[in-house]
Amino acid sequence: MSMSMVHPSVHPIEAPPLTDHAIAIPRHSLKDTQGMPGTLGGFILRFLQFSFSLLSLSLMASTSDFPSVTAFRYLVAAVSLQSVWSLSLAVADVYAILVRRGYRNSRIVSLFSIGDGITSTLTFSAACASAGITVLIGNDLNDCAQNHCSKFETATAMAFMSWFAASPSFILNFWTLASK
Amino acid sequence: MSMSMVHPSVHPIEAPPLTDHAIAIPRHSLKDTQGMPGTLGGFILRFLQFSFSLLSLSLMASTSDFPSVTAFRYLVAAVSLQSVWSLSLAVADVYAILVRRGYRNSRIVSLFSIGDGITSTLTFSAACASAGITVLIGNDLNDCAQNHCSKFETATAMAFMSWFAASPSFILNFWTLASK
Repeated sequence: MSMSMVHPSVHPIEAPPLTDHAIAIPRHSLKDTQGMPGTLGGFILRFLQFSFSLLSLSLMASTSDFPSVTAFRYLVAAVSLQSVWSLSLAVADVYAILVRRGYRNSRIVSLFSIGDGITSTLTFSAACASAGITVLIGNDLNDCAQNHCSKFETATAMAFMSWFAASPSFILNFWTLASK
Repeated sequence: MSMSMVHPSVHPIEAPPLTDHAIAIPRHSLKDTQGMPGTLGGFILRFLQFSFSLLSLSLMASTSDFPSVTAFRYLVAAVSLQSVWSLSLAVADVYAILVRRGYRNSRIVSLFSIGDGITSTLTFSAACASAGITVLIGNDLNDCAQNHCSKFETATAMAFMSWFAASPSFILNFWTLASK
């Protein structure tokens, strides 16, 4: 009895580091699937989305006659929005990687999910509309001599690639939101 | 000791109806949200998808010059697939309502979800491509005198409506799959 009264501070001192470790370890648990916001995979997806949409934008804007077709103007608007959205979320991912925290707040994940849904749907619809026009010019009208067919086609393909990179982000965010 | 040996069947006889009720009640629980496969809302969604895609198909097929544009041929193929898929799932919904059982098997729900994802994406892309062409003909080229603009536009609008009706089915199935 008297022994434990003499050294009462032995156990309290040893305990705190143990519980601190127990809290600190699951920071990056199994739920942090690669591709989620705040992971390296998520950053790579954002970077791909941003580069492809920027490529599509610059290719389309480099043609002189794109404003004469409504679908091409719409593509320029959609990939601009996509590149701005992807760039800002890439910055958010870099911040999360630097401070070593994932985005767990369900409000933020739902915001990301809604934004991804809107931008990727816009990019996909613009890419489809442009693809319809480029196929009409190239295959149905055989009018490639007067138009920048290859530039239009490459810009459309880049917009589709941007959508392909945006889909995993959207599906992963939506999945996380639903499984919570 | 001897009492329980004489009437050993009293408890087993009373028990089955009680447990049977306990199993039977949650057949249509809160998880059977309207719009899920096997509910009345799900059937209405399927019916809307089927009618809109059939309207789009018949309007597009009634024009004589739709095969000259690739995007219009693609629209006809996509809304045909959408109408066949929606009709077969509408029949499955009617069956589920008649036997008063929902679809709970996660394999079936994932099959429905994948099928919905593919058909709705195809319908949406075809509608976007056709919209690009109709806007090109109507607004950019002002060539509606030679083309069936109103029929093309209505067929495109119907394809979009079919996609609008298909999205809730896909999102609900995907949500159910993720929250399991």
